[in-house]
Amino acid sequence: MTLRIVHRIGIAAPPPRAYRALATRSGLINWWTWHITGEPALGEVFHAKFGNGTFSIRVLELTQDLRVRWTCTGGPKEWVGTEISFELAPGDRETVIGFVHAGWQETGEIMAHCNSKWGYYLLSLKTWVEDGKGSPYPEDRKISSWG
Amino acid sequence: MTLRIVHRIGIAAPPPRAYRALATRSGLINWWTWHITGEPALGEVFHAKFGNGTFSIRVLELTQDLRVRWTCTGGPKEWVGTEISFELAPGDRETVIGFVHAGWQETGEIMAHCNSKWGYYLLSLKTWVEDGKGSPYPEDRKISSWG
Repeated sequence: MTLRIVHRIGIAAPPPRAYRALATRSGLINWWTWHITGEPALGEVFHAKFGNGTFSIRVLELTQDLRVRWTCTGGPKEWVGTEISFELAPGDRETVIGFVHAGWQETGEIMAHCNSKWGYYLLSLKTWVEDGKGSPYPEDRKISSWG
Repeated sequence: MTLRIVHRIGIAAPPPRAYRALATRSGLINWWTWHITGEPALGEVFHAKFGNGTFSIRVLELTQDLRVRWTCTGGPKEWVGTEISFELAPGDRETVIGFVHAGWQETGEIMAHCNSKWGYYLLSLKTWVEDGKGSPYPEDRKISSWG
């Protein structure tokens, strides 16, 4: 059995606006990291660089306004083979994002750090879509000396 | 088998300052919720109120500058019987907080919401200890229509 990180946030915007922030390079650079190379197109691999490593990510699914699914194909060994998904559900006043990062091998300090950091970046996604103000790497708040 | 939420943050302050924020009522009201009744003393039950419920929490362990451990004895059914711990580890430039909320029965939307919210409050703990500026409930950022 493998372990998963789960988050849930609501974005006060219709699904297409949240989807664009997840499914395009211009979206990702505004809430996740400035350093995205390649395009997050279906079947393609793009690279997301942070201070402590570069993650290579293949886009497994892009379902318009509904779901984005990735798998990590290169980078820190804890991430390789894990799967990340963003599920969009329209609500009365918001689009709910159900986030899952599945396939972790152990609940160690690295998973804990990444969980805290995903929470932070998902709030950055929220403020980017709602207000046009994200806090992507390297403008992000450092949560510890690990970044 | 039960499920756990894990977070890891570093606070640029010595362990006693982080410990005080976790082990005293005056600490908790400055980063978690204004509405703490009772004292978080060893063996005692205190109550932490938020918009969507009140959590009754028994203090299982208070090990000076090292560890605080709670169990939830009342409140939303998903929380009752779960155990929360904060482990403090001194580092070169920071005190690392290892947070665990264990005993979840399912990885549903409520666990996802609570995980995102814990990440937020642990950053509130960090800014409270480092800068004297926390963002406890009800001054916290709402992450969705759930609070």
